Amino acid sequence: MSEKATSLSDLGLYGLIEHFQKQYKPLNTSELPAMGEDACSILTAPEHLSSTTLLLEGINFDLTYTPLQHLGFKAVTVAVNDLLAMNASPSQISINIGLSNKITLEMLETLMSGIFAACEHYQTELTAFKPAASLTGLTMALNVTGKENKKGLVRRSGAQPTDVICVTGDLGGALMGLHLLEREKRVLQSNDHSQPVFGDNEYVLKRQLKPEGRTAFLTAMEKLDLVPTSMTGISEGLATSLILLCRSSKTGCRIYENKIPLHQNTLKAARELNYNPLIAALNGGEDFELLFTLSLEVYEKNKEGLPEEVSVIGHITEEDKACRMISNADDEIDIKARGWGNLNI
Amino acid sequence: MSEKATSLSDLGLYGLIEHFQKQYKPLNTSELPAMGEDACSILTAPEHLSSTTLLLEGINFDLTYTPLQHLGFKAVTVAVNDLLAMNASPSQISINIGLSNKITLEMLETLMSGIFAACEHYQTELTAFKPAASLTGLTMALNVTGKENKKGLVRRSGAQPTDVICVTGDLGGALMGLHLLEREKRVLQSNDHSQPVFGDNEYVLKRQLKPEGRTAFLTAMEKLDLVPTSMTGISEGLATSLILLCRSSKTGCRIYENKIPLHQNTLKAARELNYNPLIAALNGGEDFELLFTLSLEVYEKNKEGLPEEVSVIGHITEEDKACRMISNADDEIDIKARGWGNLNI
Repeated sequence: MSEKATSLSDLGLYGLIEHFQKQYKPLNTSELPAMGEDACSILTAPEHLSSTTLLLEGINFDLTYTPLQHLGFKAVTVAVNDLLAMNASPSQISINIGLSNKITLEMLETLMSGIFAACEHYQTELTAFKPAASLTGLTMALNVTGKENKKGLVRRSGAQPTDVICVTGDLGGALMGLHLLEREKRVLQSNDHSQPVFGDNEYVLKRQLKPEGRTAFLTAMEKLDLVPTSMTGISEGLATSLILLCRSSKTGCRIYENKIPLHQNTLKAARELNYNPLIAALNGGEDFELLFTLSLEVYEKNKEGLPEEVSVIGHITEEDKACRMISNADDEIDIKARGWGNLNI
Repeated sequence: MSEKATSLSDLGLYGLIEHFQKQYKPLNTSELPAMGEDACSILTAPEHLSSTTLLLEGINFDLTYTPLQHLGFKAVTVAVNDLLAMNASPSQISINIGLSNKITLEMLETLMSGIFAACEHYQTELTAFKPAASLTGLTMALNVTGKENKKGLVRRSGAQPTDVICVTGDLGGALMGLHLLEREKRVLQSNDHSQPVFGDNEYVLKRQLKPEGRTAFLTAMEKLDLVPTSMTGISEGLATSLILLCRSSKTGCRIYENKIPLHQNTLKAARELNYNPLIAALNGGEDFELLFTLSLEVYEKNKEGLPEEVSVIGHITEEDKACRMISNADDEIDIKARGWGNLNI
């Protein structure tokens, strides 16, 4: 065996996926499965999709400030979002859960009540519940199965030069919510008598603690007979999603700093935290919005009637133009994915 | 919120599943989903099945004595087994993996080579690989999707009184392998210079470290045109599987101590470890054999031609007869499931 010891952080998250994708020899197809897509098609039942999400204590959530009911709801949202990101609707969910001995039945009931509420919200049947013991904190693996929407699946790989780049909702809020919670945790740890002070930051706290997937947006697009040329979820910041979409589509892109949608409460929290809200939008995570492209023709025909949550942030270019953002000072800045970034591996 | 703090171990593993199964209100069916089945049907694509397996360091494996390549192979076996246990064949697998910073690229390559080998062994395409950082040890979530075999799914719930109870292979070996490894770990920890001594215990070590699912058995049964009336996997000991099968089928059972298949190497290792091999078979785990029932008529017609790995261990009774084992001394002993048992929650 080799004595080399290469750190995983040398490759980064997506480098690691590509590394093993190249090593794997498919059994039945000449094509490599798209191992890094948001969800994967069920080979024996095309039109159907499956995606698994793994959530680990200390990485994906901190039980010191996360209400268990919200955690249950959010876990389902994270899982469901991978299907939404391909224009599919979830129909059932299974949950495997590793329980440490600090978790009581009452705590688990609170967590499960959030999962049940999310199942109802997303009209998704819970079909498996597999508890197990854990020595290493609360661990959840959620599998979501569903079906493509009427207009068919939308993949990351369909963007073409001149396509218009759009996002739903606003970005960076979930990260600002996280930083507020982390700040309050430090205050609480240093002073037993103080109470958390969230002021009027409910919006960003809700973005962090109880995000909701964009099901209504997909329904609206279907009613308008609009099909994106490509789409992906924004779970690890706009920069990562843009680069994945452009790499899959073999294109470049230009986005505009002043077009990136930032909520006024995100801007306010960012000021309070002395944090650059643009960095939060580009490299933050967990906004659970959708990034998609429309052909220029379709966009021009429908621009007045797009769902109100849509913002146009730029356009797709030829691949050799790279992925860049035009800053407010009119500079072209390379867009970089954060890889493992703040995951501390 | 309630101030009660009920320990999860008061309910036991299957008590916990039933607890939440009763609390859940299904969306679209009047029937409660069978949340504890080995795998679940895909609601939007009947005939197709999905199952997720969560494997946690310190609970499901110990990296101090588990070769990473075997761990990769075994992880796929554990996942695939849930589909085999319902008479289905796996067609694709996805893996989410939480990686702690002690895992190097070279270690991950060894683990993945075992996963790749198992994918080839089970003719199952790897369609998603999602790595993430973990602060709490190596964590794997594997989802397997597949399709029912030609004769259709076999559930736990189909057993009828007078049906013959069968198992594949032999039982208790994997637990004896585990105890040998644990013993060697203690020796190695107390003395840096000693080497592990496995003697001629390769059989039970392989049962623990590199188990294989019973795909060939299912193919053989299909060729013989034989369909079990009920079936489940034996992953947590014969006792738990028998009780789950009888509870689902609303029956009791009688099995015979002297019919339980024990490999001669399991008996030998049990002597060496001063362990009761019957307890290993009933309450051990990870044998990954199949427990199934045949109608008496079908059994009588085919008993000479059954696949050689099949042992008949007893018969199904009416529910009020309970689940009991006839000992070699002709006593009737209640069969008890171990619940969380050695999971130390």
